[in-house]
Amino acid sequence: MAERRRGLVLVAHGSRREASNDEVRRVAAQLAEQSAGRFEMIHAAFLELAEPLIPAGVQCCIDNGMEEVVVLPYFLSAGRHVVEDIPAEVAKVNNTTGAEVRIAPYLGAAPGLADILLEQSEK
Amino acid sequence: MAERRRGLVLVAHGSRREASNDEVRRVAAQLAEQSAGRFEMIHAAFLELAEPLIPAGVQCCIDNGMEEVVVLPYFLSAGRHVVEDIPAEVAKVNNTTGAEVRIAPYLGAAPGLADILLEQSEK
Repeated sequence: MAERRRGLVLVAHGSRREASNDEVRRVAAQLAEQSAGRFEMIHAAFLELAEPLIPAGVQCCIDNGMEEVVVLPYFLSAGRHVVEDIPAEVAKVNNTTGAEVRIAPYLGAAPGLADILLEQSEK
Repeated sequence: MAERRRGLVLVAHGSRREASNDEVRRVAAQLAEQSAGRFEMIHAAFLELAEPLIPAGVQCCIDNGMEEVVVLPYFLSAGRHVVEDIPAEVAKVNNTTGAEVRIAPYLGAAPGLADILLEQSEK
């Protein structure tokens, strides 16, 4: 069986400060560099205040033939944005191809975060 | 030379949603578990909306005899909070003992973040 074509959408809140949005886009670019081909498309999308919004970011993957789209919340806490708003935005996507669209656990839930914080504390 | 007594203050924004503040406190507790004695005291502090505030969190380390206090911003982007507000709050501390108080790079600048995000994307 051929591997499925996969897209990754890194979702952040979005800011009026464009430099913060660009910072998220750079993280997405870094993910693309390091993903070693696990994802064919990787880009950032935003809940509000910046483009593309979440539905457009996911739609772009579907329209480009991705069979699986992973939405990855770039958030540190499981607040309303993660629990309610992101799923609601993802549900707006017009999934005409029947692609699998799923939401991965948010960054703050990652077990490796403590190690990274301890590394930062020595810098 | 004896090793210096060190404290770590994990600084988050603070939320009206107490569960989010508790989530930060749990990350601080996890850091304490994993720090292997590199820090004698580790706790969370907040820019606003939750206790302790940053000056109190740092002061607590100084008053307990820490000779070095590392303030670690639990933030994903280098916005105003990281660039201006956290340093301004840290400057309010009454550093009577001459402890070294320094602000570590914020979480979003950590080089290992991309690896953790890619791990999350497979969950």
